[in-house]
Amino acid sequence: MTIIDIINKKRLKKELTREEITFAVNGYVNGDIKDYQMSSLLMAIVLNGMTDRETIDLTDIMINSGDVLDLSKIDGIIVDKHSTGGVGDKETLVLGPLLASLGIKIAKMSGRGLGHTGGTIDKLESIKGFNTKLSEEEFIDQVNKINIALVSQTSNLVPADKKIYALRDVTGTVESIPLIASSIMSKKIASGADIIMIDVKVGNGALMKNLDDARLLAKLMVKIGASYRKPTICLLTNMEEPLGYAIGNALEVKEAIDTLKGSGPSDLLEVVMTLSSIIIGAVKKIPNNEAKNLLFKQINNGEAYKKFEELVEAQGGDINDIKVSDKVFSIKSDKSGYINKIDALRLGEIAKQIGAGRNTLDDEIDYEVGLVLNKKVGDKVEKDEELVKVYLKNKDVSISDILSCFKIDDELKVMTKLILDIIK
Amino acid sequence: MTIIDIINKKRLKKELTREEITFAVNGYVNGDIKDYQMSSLLMAIVLNGMTDRETIDLTDIMINSGDVLDLSKIDGIIVDKHSTGGVGDKETLVLGPLLASLGIKIAKMSGRGLGHTGGTIDKLESIKGFNTKLSEEEFIDQVNKINIALVSQTSNLVPADKKIYALRDVTGTVESIPLIASSIMSKKIASGADIIMIDVKVGNGALMKNLDDARLLAKLMVKIGASYRKPTICLLTNMEEPLGYAIGNALEVKEAIDTLKGSGPSDLLEVVMTLSSIIIGAVKKIPNNEAKNLLFKQINNGEAYKKFEELVEAQGGDINDIKVSDKVFSIKSDKSGYINKIDALRLGEIAKQIGAGRNTLDDEIDYEVGLVLNKKVGDKVEKDEELVKVYLKNKDVSISDILSCFKIDDELKVMTKLILDIIK
Repeated sequence: MTIIDIINKKRLKKELTREEITFAVNGYVNGDIKDYQMSSLLMAIVLNGMTDRETIDLTDIMINSGDVLDLSKIDGIIVDKHSTGGVGDKETLVLGPLLASLGIKIAKMSGRGLGHTGGTIDKLESIKGFNTKLSEEEFIDQVNKINIALVSQTSNLVPADKKIYALRDVTGTVESIPLIASSIMSKKIASGADIIMIDVKVGNGALMKNLDDARLLAKLMVKIGASYRKPTICLLTNMEEPLGYAIGNALEVKEAIDTLKGSGPSDLLEVVMTLSSIIIGAVKKIPNNEAKNLLFKQINNGEAYKKFEELVEAQGGDINDIKVSDKVFSIKSDKSGYINKIDALRLGEIAKQIGAGRNTLDDEIDYEVGLVLNKKVGDKVEKDEELVKVYLKNKDVSISDILSCFKIDDELKVMTKLILDIIK
Repeated sequence: MTIIDIINKKRLKKELTREEITFAVNGYVNGDIKDYQMSSLLMAIVLNGMTDRETIDLTDIMINSGDVLDLSKIDGIIVDKHSTGGVGDKETLVLGPLLASLGIKIAKMSGRGLGHTGGTIDKLESIKGFNTKLSEEEFIDQVNKINIALVSQTSNLVPADKKIYALRDVTGTVESIPLIASSIMSKKIASGADIIMIDVKVGNGALMKNLDDARLLAKLMVKIGASYRKPTICLLTNMEEPLGYAIGNALEVKEAIDTLKGSGPSDLLEVVMTLSSIIIGAVKKIPNNEAKNLLFKQINNGEAYKKFEELVEAQGGDINDIKVSDKVFSIKSDKSGYINKIDALRLGEIAKQIGAGRNTLDDEIDYEVGLVLNKKVGDKVEKDEELVKVYLKNKDVSISDILSCFKIDDELKVMTKLILDIIK
């Protein structure tokens, strides 16, 4: 068996055996197979596809390329949550404490991503003193004690995906449903949770450009999850605009707190409630509307926010010390009309540009910067009315760059739904 | 413009602009674009194709990546000849002197290839003293004086193709009609000839597996040639068996001499006559059968062989000193029947294994080794009758490996033609 034979087989659109995929992945991880050979194979996979069997094998081989977290010492049902590149996505910060307040175990160990803003772990670090570096034992202890821990990855999880993903990123081989599915699911399965929730963003700026592709991806991930007996729930959500109002680490934590206290944005709340009620309904064997009532009760009686306070305290953070920059600029609309689109991706790129996200893993995040929308899609805006506040510190952005993210027309377009589908 | 944008465009099956192809090729040659990015782009090209316009642009950009030979100081019509990986292909050694004896200029400057046996240059070096390292000036002088010179490449011709071809070889991206066409034609055009002849081998072991693909390749090469006003003639020939009887450097030179003297194998003669008569017919404006008569006359009156002697003498060789190994083994058939196929590719690999060809450009060729067939496809063979003679020196081969190249059946299969098509 040689890598050239394997590349040629996939070039001719034939199904690879488990042995062939193992040879390619392990050979690449140990350096026998070169970057230029793997990228050629990846492009052949992008264009000629993989069967579900190949994808499930690839996922399994990647999982076995590193450690697999053993969370068997945690009692109860453990839930993990992932989002495919949402801008302003602070779902986990709300959903985690909310579910934990009802006895669900939230054990999330995640790597630091390259995104428009930091990942969940980075966002939490905008809380002064918050320590995301727990040992595996401390992590498990904390989940057993207060039902929730959100920590940065210490173990060597899925090194194959790490190496392959970095290559895909620079070789135009990102957009492949089987490769995306196996990349996401290998990390989720290696992280040890029992139930996996995934928010699949759909739209022009998202990884999935249309609903059909998003459905295929979701179905494939549900199938992979099932092959490990791990129920997987995918929410397909619209990426017409950022989720909530805030983009930026500290700003998003503050918005998550507002939401846990009952005064958050309705779109964020809708996504959180949809996902949480499916989990609670299934675990407690109650209908969905009852589950939603139970969840709203946890917000209204303060239990959800209290759980967030417990989490912050357990990991050494000071909830009263979340700094945002005081260099705030108000960007005003240059015309009147209806907001028909807010380009989430471009706003995310602006957030990164002003310091809220990383370009390389060595970059430092500035927790205090970001943007807070004053208007959402569907809103009417007058000329000179505020569209967005920008929180700057050391880096700059032009006003016209920000304004170009808003599509303002004389007429209101037919609104698209936020939640497009649920696949489970 | 970034290479990732270009890869993504080709991944989505869009036509690349000349600027984009230039960016990719030149960036790769100067090292800005990495091997893993080029191989990903190449696989996208293999699977999504290129338009004729893209292929012609690619060819032109590759030609301009290095020197272009200026043969304007040679008077008369200059002809070059190429073959796509034939086993036992000594056509140029016959066709060159034959055409030169009628006033056509044969100016062939070629690199040393990696093949089953050496290239034309290597074959000539099996003649003691033969010097293939002429300067560009000596090369041109010799063509003007005796109409023919066959020398190894001194100039930096098409470095882009050299680098891209080496990458294709190890990334499963060889089999692409536009990439093959641009690779062959860029070298032929940079070599400066006026008329280009190409023998496209067709069959299981050849680069072109079927006649349809071979026709597409040939038509594309003719089109590329036309865009430089260089008439290009492609002969599509069957690769059911090696051409002639001899495989190996000195052995092939001896067979070429036999052919120039009128006692060569009929298949070799047929290919040589077909190609040469097209050239002579066009140059002398005479019908094909008259051209053939003229060519046969040159063989029968000794002029063709005399031109070969002149060539060898001009480049310092001793035509009476062409050594072949005296370690000769006769391989006999283990059964009686009709020979329906002789696996040219496998015999070629055996020739390479025993030292007649190179695996890497640093390998030394053993000029004295090789194989000489005693039977060809269509022949009847008795048990214990000789199939082939093997000339060995330092390396070995198993008898059963050689025998497995011959397909011997009770019945004679319908014979396929040698020359399948002519495209010009």
